[in-house]
Amino acid sequence: MLTPGRAATLALLLEATSDPTPGNVDRGHDHGDTALHQFVGSAVAVGPALAPAAEGAPLGATVEEAAAASGRHRGGNTHFGAILLLAPLVAGAGAGDPVDGAEGAVEATTVEDAERFYAAFDHVEVALPPIAETDVDPALDARDPRAARAAVRDRGLTLADLMAAGAEDDGIAREWTEGFPATADAADRLERHHDPAAVDGVEQAVVATHLALLADRPDGHVATVHGRDVAEQVRDRAAAVRDDDGDLAAFDAELVERGINPGTTADIVAGGLYLALRRDGGFRP
Amino acid sequence: MLTPGRAATLALLLEATSDPTPGNVDRGHDHGDTALHQFVGSAVAVGPALAPAAEGAPLGATVEEAAAASGRHRGGNTHFGAILLLAPLVAGAGAGDPVDGAEGAVEATTVEDAERFYAAFDHVEVALPPIAETDVDPALDARDPRAARAAVRDRGLTLADLMAAGAEDDGIAREWTEGFPATADAADRLERHHDPAAVDGVEQAVVATHLALLADRPDGHVATVHGRDVAEQVRDRAAAVRDDDGDLAAFDAELVERGINPGTTADIVAGGLYLALRRDGGFRP
Repeated sequence: MLTPGRAATLALLLEATSDPTPGNVDRGHDHGDTALHQFVGSAVAVGPALAPAAEGAPLGATVEEAAAASGRHRGGNTHFGAILLLAPLVAGAGAGDPVDGAEGAVEATTVEDAERFYAAFDHVEVALPPIAETDVDPALDARDPRAARAAVRDRGLTLADLMAAGAEDDGIAREWTEGFPATADAADRLERHHDPAAVDGVEQAVVATHLALLADRPDGHVATVHGRDVAEQVRDRAAAVRDDDGDLAAFDAELVERGINPGTTADIVAGGLYLALRRDGGFRP
Repeated sequence: MLTPGRAATLALLLEATSDPTPGNVDRGHDHGDTALHQFVGSAVAVGPALAPAAEGAPLGATVEEAAAASGRHRGGNTHFGAILLLAPLVAGAGAGDPVDGAEGAVEATTVEDAERFYAAFDHVEVALPPIAETDVDPALDARDPRAARAAVRDRGLTLADLMAAGAEDDGIAREWTEGFPATADAADRLERHHDPAAVDGVEQAVVATHLALLADRPDGHVATVHGRDVAEQVRDRAAAVRDDDGDLAAFDAELVERGINPGTTADIVAGGLYLALRRDGGFRP
């Protein structure tokens, strides 16, 4: 079985090198400010930075280290959401069920983890929704990490508390808070869609799972950057493509043209790939 | 600076995820029996398997371990040539000049390294030329690893001796024997072609270097599989595309159509990427 760190790297790589994953940087196209090679470089750096979590390293420090490792390339943010999702999954690697293990790791987070989480924002530029449009207390706004660190100290908030506060507005925070249901679902879908006899079986499974998740719920990153209406539109289009066996390449081109990248869906697929690669079910390239 | 193992993984990934690299599995297309995802999975496994060479692990054992790690996917051979090229480069990582260090590692190889080299063929299916068409003694034919191991023991041949015997017919063996000139040249070309201001600067450098190497000399893998005349034809076509600013995508499609993949050139580009990534010159995605 792959070590947790290598499974994390491979999961990020398999997500980025499949095509088409509508609107996201993928095997088929770059974005103007970030290319596939930045995702590749980041993936190679992130796995080893997450690995210590499997040996008991605190989640906050792990997220900060991985964000710093990910940010050592040019181009925009690549893997911040995926890092936040993978860190507890890696931390849960020793448990019989890795998702149970991840839930335990979330419950065990401390105030110091919350402080280190804010420090991660020094290393990457992350798209955040206007704080007034969210349910989050303005004192916890990651755009002012120094003030936010003081607030979590004053109030004794753990990283799990912070994620619970953001769960309404952020798909990854929701995974932390609800026990990783979308990620586990993505892993199941990947295995169901995987044809082990096909040389490109994993790529086809990634493509099918991306579309299924996009059709199921509005993408959080799209909602943050373009608003909830656009996120709903994208979901409706994805559902139509899936249900009517529509033109996936045209849908991809349309999102790229409009500058819409469903990054939360990509993060969840990467989390699902990590879980599937760590299972003993023959899910591998 | 990237550790030697991570630089090896990243080098293999950047080579495979650039497009077009004429005839080879790349970002743009798979082959019928091997897809990009097998190269990705192999790259993630090969780096950590090569890393011990930087700490003094013997080259023969390192090549066998890396070949075994590389072979744990479905699909055909991905990285055997690249492993053989990268192993001495990784072993030379501690030297002031990594190519000098690699030459020292080659000179230090033993009879046991030669025996372990043959054991690597148990893990991967490697294309080999008909032994009668080569300058290699039939007793050393890797198609009968058991007999070949006995022969190297009897004659006291080191792995460097074996590579010298194969240098006429194999581009990687020639690198071992001549001090890695094509690999160092590839690293220089990659740096020259790299525009650090372009988000896809590394990909464009890989594409330009591939074409330049293909135009410079006949590819060894093509000569092995299709004969020397075909390898010369491919070189002439590459030179024409380069010199007349011809249609690179059409050249790529033509080689794919004919089932011709210049695998030795891909190995040398990967070796050059490894050296460029380990230099302190800002060559990174």
